[in-house]
This record gives sequence, C-alpha cells and structure tokens, in this order.
Amino acid sequence: MIQKFSEIKIDTEGQRLINISKKIDDFVEKSKINYGILNLSILHTSASLIIQENASKDVLIDLENFFNKLVPMNDSLYLHTLEGKDDMPAHIKTSLTNTNLSLSIIKNILKLGTWQGIYLFEHRIEKHLRSIFCHIIGEK
Amino acid sequence: MIQKFSEIKIDTEGQRLINISKKIDDFVEKSKINYGILNLSILHTSASLIIQENASKDVLIDLENFFNKLVPMNDSLYLHTLEGKDDMPAHIKTSLTNTNLSLSIIKNILKLGTWQGIYLFEHRIEKHLRSIFCHIIGEK
Amino acid sequence: MIQKFSEIKIDTEGQRLINISKKIDDFVEKSKINYGILNLSILHTSASLIIQENASKDVLIDLENFFNKLVPMNDSLYLHTLEGKDDMPAHIKTSLTNTNLSLSIIKNILKLGTWQGIYLFEHRIEKHLRSIFCHIIGEK
Repeated sequence: MIQKFSEIKIDTEGQRLINISKKIDDFVEKSKINYGILNLSILHTSASLIIQENASKDVLIDLENFFNKLVPMNDSLYLHTLEGKDDMPAHIKTSLTNTNLSLSIIKNILKLGTWQGIYLFEHRIEKHLRSIFCHIIGEK
Repeated sequence: MIQKFSEIKIDTEGQRLINISKKIDDFVEKSKINYGILNLSILHTSASLIIQENASKDVLIDLENFFNKLVPMNDSLYLHTLEGKDDMPAHIKTSLTNTNLSLSIIKNILKLGTWQGIYLFEHRIEKHLRSIFCHIIGEK
Repeated sequence: MIQKFSEIKIDTEGQRLINISKKIDDFVEKSKINYGILNLSILHTSASLIIQENASKDVLIDLENFFNKLVPMNDSLYLHTLEGKDDMPAHIKTSLTNTNLSLSIIKNILKLGTWQGIYLFEHRIEKHLRSIFCHIIGEK
C-alpha cells in the first residue's frame, strides 16, 4: 500500500465554478500510483466540489444562476446574517453539492468520463484562498 | 491489498430511477474481497447515483417528480439549450445528487441498510447507454 | 493494510442537525490508524450526513428551515404518504444531501477544516435510532 497526499490551494475571485482537473491530474501523475482511489476534501463550508461538464461554459453559468435563484441572498430568510448576505446561502449551496469526492485511478490516470471535469464551486462573493486536501491510497 | 475494478453498462430509457444493487452485488461477490471499500463513479454529467429506499415504487416516482419541478425544462431559464430542453436540467440534477458513492464491504457483502438500494438516476428523456466504474480496495 | 470498522448508534429526537464529530474522532483515535481514508455510511434513507460549520447554531437552524421550505410536508405533492407527511420529504432531503462521506486521516486525526463539523441530519419528526457505519482503510 502506498499513500500520497497534498493540500492544493486555489485563489477564488467571487462566485464561480473553477475547473481544477489539471491540478488534480498533476497530483495523480506525480504520485506515481497506478491503481488506487483518490479522495478529495474541500476544507470549507462555503465552497464545494462537483464533477460537471468540461466543454460548455454556458453550463457553468447556468449552474451558478440556478443555485443563486434556488438559494437567494436575502437577509430576511436567514438568522445567520453576521458574515454577509452571501454567507448563509453559501453554506446551503455547499450542503446541496459536495465537500468530498472519491475517484478511481487506473494506470496512473483519473477515471473520469470524456465530458467530466472536477470543479471547485465558490459560493462567496469576495476573494478567498481555498484548500483542497488530496489523498490517494493505492499501489504501483 | 487487492484491487478489483469493472465498468458496468446500463441501458436507460428516459427519466427514471433504476435499481442497480443486484449488478453491484454481483461485482462485489465476484471480487471475492471480504473487507474493503467500494467506490462507484458514474462517468456522465447528466445522470447520477443515489442511495434510496428499495421498497416503495411511489418513492421513486415522487423523487422524479420533485426533481422535475425543482429544475424545470424551460429553455428561457438557461443559456445552454443546444443539446435539448432536458440537458441543462439534467446537469443541474446531477450536481444536486451524486456522481460518486463510497460503500463498505464486510464479509464480501455491501454494508447497506435494510431499506437501501443503489440507483442510477437517469435525467435525460432519450435512451442512453450509461457507464458506472466500480472499484474495490480491500483484502480477503 | 489495516482495516477498522464500527457501527455508531445515534438517538435522534425530531428534525435536527446533530454534531457527531466527537464520536467519529473517538473511533479514529481508537483505531490507531495514522494514515488512511475513513468512509461513513448512514444506513437509512430518511436521515443523511453533511459536513457543515461547527460554530454558529444559527447556521444549523437556517439549514433546517431552508430544507423544510424547499421540500414541504404537503401530502398533495406526493404519492408516498403512508408513512407520514414527513417521510417522503425526508427521502428527498436525503437525496439532496449525502448518505456517504469519505475523509482523510493524517497522523491519526481527521483532516477537516477549522470550521468543519460532521453532522447527522435527521429529517423525520419522530424519535429514531440511527446507525452510521464507520470504516477506515489505512496503516500505522
């Protein structure tokens, strides 16, 4: 059994889906693990992780709009308003998506579908530095 | 450490929750791994995976109806309309459910609750061939 | 490779987010596994698991309220009403959150963010006894 782990840092600039596939691919390649399972944990509760289409930018905009409509920034809806009008909606959006993802590694390559990309989904409107913990268990 | 993996193919015929527990159980049994963790990855962004009740068919219909109401097929709501009125809603429903599931294997049997079944949730209205990658890490 | 597993039982008393981090931490500590991946499976389809903020109690109330508003207890909306007005909404809320979570263990400590806690999200209004299966794969 080999284990490799690393914390990846991502600068975000407001609500957006950020494709992090390349950074994760680099970590997998560097690990030299051929067969294993990768676990990703975002270490926050106001940004999340999803696997989504990697081709159309409109899909990303539509996702962002859908979630903003579903979880409005309206202080009258929430008790927790101290940290800004976008904070409680960010927590809710995180709970509707994922904080953790597990993926297969086969022949040192992430097993994703042709159209799948890994995204950090930033839900806050200000700049943030986000940490994603990457951990592989596997063998050569 | 033993690793076993396999890609399971499922034919879908429109929006529906399809119980795939039997296929996953078969893979687990064949693997002969007694103790381990199974990771499931659906290799698409318009169909997803969930664990839900395996008894009442009404639960499945209610789930399908809820998601259709929450994420309407209405072109005026989305930029991404090129691939059909059901495509962008399918991406959104996928992001609200799961592309990946991790489950325990104990004594060569999946650790599920009595009422739990594993479902492929097809969100598109046309027929599709879906791939689910199954990967176990464990030992005898 | 070392594997450790245990079933944790939690008494719930109506709809609520219950912080179970301490119980999970205890299991990790007792396992003596230094590096590994922990998989959590809730063995039900009407209660779920999420990682959320561990500081503000208002966040928990807002989450509960949001999900109750999004998925109303209104029999006219559902076919599956036999098990009570809160049962079908509970299944839907489970499908919108998680039945499984995977987390990293580093130096015998769960890799969570400073503000992250692990919660059981009870969606039923009556008392229930809930089971969460905890399974670590790793090494010393």
